[in-house]
Amino acid sequence: MARDTRQRIMTMALALFNEEGEPNVTTNRIADELEISPGNLHYHFRTKSDLIEALFGQFEQRMLELLATPDERQPDIEDIWLFLHLCFETIGEFRFLYRDLTDLCGRHRGVHQRFRAILNLSMNTARGLMDGLAAAGQLEASSLEMSALVRNIVLVSTCWLAFDQVIERDGEGRPDRAVWQVMSLLSPYLAGDSRDQLLALARQYQISL
Amino acid sequence: MARDTRQRIMTMALALFNEEGEPNVTTNRIADELEISPGNLHYHFRTKSDLIEALFGQFEQRMLELLATPDERQPDIEDIWLFLHLCFETIGEFRFLYRDLTDLCGRHRGVHQRFRAILNLSMNTARGLMDGLAAAGQLEASSLEMSALVRNIVLVSTCWLAFDQVIERDGEGRPDRAVWQVMSLLSPYLAGDSRDQLLALARQYQISL
Repeated sequence: MARDTRQRIMTMALALFNEEGEPNVTTNRIADELEISPGNLHYHFRTKSDLIEALFGQFEQRMLELLATPDERQPDIEDIWLFLHLCFETIGEFRFLYRDLTDLCGRHRGVHQRFRAILNLSMNTARGLMDGLAAAGQLEASSLEMSALVRNIVLVSTCWLAFDQVIERDGEGRPDRAVWQVMSLLSPYLAGDSRDQLLALARQYQISL
Repeated sequence: MARDTRQRIMTMALALFNEEGEPNVTTNRIADELEISPGNLHYHFRTKSDLIEALFGQFEQRMLELLATPDERQPDIEDIWLFLHLCFETIGEFRFLYRDLTDLCGRHRGVHQRFRAILNLSMNTARGLMDGLAAAGQLEASSLEMSALVRNIVLVSTCWLAFDQVIERDGEGRPDRAVWQVMSLLSPYLAGDSRDQLLALARQYQISL
């Protein structure tokens, strides 16, 4: 029962943070929406920071699971597309974290360190995927270009949501546009079948100019 | 004299916003640092929003001047590198705007609209530069790739600072690393002399892996 309330608080907080931005939502507001007393909420989460860190913990677990997914075989372009799609779904689910990332990291040192670890792990994963494509003769890049490519893959993945929100009127719910924006970074480096495969996927997901 | 005070307030506010993050700096703090009364500051800027908008106005003017710089001749890779260098200098000078962009745009509708206009103008400029390189036989990209490239140029330029700050310990004062991170987006599309020219510039600015 208490466990149930804890989860209900987290679910409501996540929905409100995503909808209205974390700085604009108080714990009292969350309690109000759930029709529980502020004291009850306080019993589960002593401060708003505790609540944010608990949500971050859920996000972190999801991302670490995604990034650790073992691959028996050399992933091809479609595997990478689907992998990114799953990443962007998770990012979308916890989008409040990505909307004000610098501010959030500034206010929560623990979150900053753990977020930085996720970014570094993401760079390792991206590097592994690119090296795999290169080893299979599907990607050609100088080592200087490769380092910049890996960094840009993680940068565009991390910042897409915030950028899209500033530049568009409706910045959400289009993971495949985000996936294409990341995959387009690889596009000019691809060789062999991979280039055609990427173009076919872009068409399949109806990416347009 | 009053004009002088107004400018001193803006200079101090910019320094403090950049150093400590705009949400963490009150107008009273700014008045304190300048050893003027809160009432005096209030005479020049009725609210903190007014102060933010005045600073944004300065930034906007600088960016519009940069983006409007007419070019008599077709710019080459080095011209584009230097142009980006100037952009990143301006971004660094007003880095508080870039650190919490989504939050800032959420709280200031006027700033959001004007920032969006700058981003759209930047995309037009990037598009013009890329079309110019393509017309000169120095760049080869499909139209789908070109659209993604233009968007990524502006995305990486806009988000570099926030990303760098989250991932590194010292996220500031290295415009040429930022320039390279943007120029690397073009790199695989370059043909003719331009590809060598870019590599030579990366070496000259001591970009390393």
